[in-house]
Amino acid sequence: MITHVPIFAHPNPKKVLVIGGGDGGVLREVLKHPDVSKITLVEIDDLVIQLSKKYLPKMAVALDNERVEVKLMDGFKYLADLKDSADEEKYDVIITDSSDPDGPAEAFFEQNYFELLNNALNKTGIVISMASENMWLTIENLQKLRRICAKVFPVVKTCYVTIPTYTSGQISLMCCSKNPDLKLNEPVRKLTKEEELKNFKYYNSEIHKASFVLPTWANEIIYKD
Amino acid sequence: MITHVPIFAHPNPKKVLVIGGGDGGVLREVLKHPDVSKITLVEIDDLVIQLSKKYLPKMAVALDNERVEVKLMDGFKYLADLKDSADEEKYDVIITDSSDPDGPAEAFFEQNYFELLNNALNKTGIVISMASENMWLTIENLQKLRRICAKVFPVVKTCYVTIPTYTSGQISLMCCSKNPDLKLNEPVRKLTKEEELKNFKYYNSEIHKASFVLPTWANEIIYKD
Repeated sequence: MITHVPIFAHPNPKKVLVIGGGDGGVLREVLKHPDVSKITLVEIDDLVIQLSKKYLPKMAVALDNERVEVKLMDGFKYLADLKDSADEEKYDVIITDSSDPDGPAEAFFEQNYFELLNNALNKTGIVISMASENMWLTIENLQKLRRICAKVFPVVKTCYVTIPTYTSGQISLMCCSKNPDLKLNEPVRKLTKEEELKNFKYYNSEIHKASFVLPTWANEIIYKD
Repeated sequence: MITHVPIFAHPNPKKVLVIGGGDGGVLREVLKHPDVSKITLVEIDDLVIQLSKKYLPKMAVALDNERVEVKLMDGFKYLADLKDSADEEKYDVIITDSSDPDGPAEAFFEQNYFELLNNALNKTGIVISMASENMWLTIENLQKLRRICAKVFPVVKTCYVTIPTYTSGQISLMCCSKNPDLKLNEPVRKLTKEEELKNFKYYNSEIHKASFVLPTWANEIIYKD
């Protein structure tokens, strides 16, 4: 469901970049969108890919799709190399599928990383960071991340998704748009009911909007300047 | 938050009945609504009240409010006695705050109970059952309860609320309306932003609507005829 939010919030997503996500789960979902013609996955650790192919074949199958290009390298370096590229070389959507902010993945939650993302997006691009945060447990981290993103992007919004296997049953995401007029909480492209039922078990247009609606106390903290 | 849904979905809630809820927590929330002039709490177990007064004084204080009438008796008997009362003796909103459906509270999830609720409501009344169910873990129970309620009420909708202390971080509720034209997912009465911030930590008009939006797979199961 998380994966679909930035894609349905974008009017015309052609090129998608996934940083991390070597298990193939995010790829599998992005591939459900026929409008997306190319997906680049940048994974630093080949072992993640190999283990997913061995133990999670239904996810890993996406890694071999013809629309997918896998690059085994550091996401930071990949983004930095894109900095001086032409706008058409850059991405419509970038999804960060990293580990939690405490530990080795800490750098994915700092301003420098969001500046690199900004440079790797084309003029109307969107990023989504799987923040691995839960508003009930670690709201301060979401506040901090929202403030960092707001220094780089004109539109920054938090959404959440309920997942029973995550601690306390939910995870929050940070979504940013380079286009100041884009409402990330609106699904710009809508599917027919039939298409929705066929392809998506969780996502629908209504839940897209609802996932950005937070309890009053969480709004007050996350969006506090 | 749960408590506020049926009250804001009702155009003019004057009389509220709470079945169970001897700790006073639901009462405390209902008392935040100045339109509600009388709240009856029917609790079978006085020990719940006494222990709440001793250990949860911030909840229990509501039990002594002048708008509250506490009746120590079986909720089933109280509802049955109301059956032949005049419409003005009946309730605008009835909230069931019982234990889980597996065990002693099982009877609160059967058709007979919802028929008693229906008889105790006035012509435009609403009920909400704190179903103690989680759509991720016990979706079949929600489907069963929705089907039972639909035999009694013309409008039946499920909503959920995220609470970190519940298993898997959320709880689903069943809401029913005797008035066929009432949209339970619409907050009929809206507060100003200032009033919302002053009185409610979780509830706001947007989250009222969002709480009725379920993942596609859950909609398919719960609302399946």
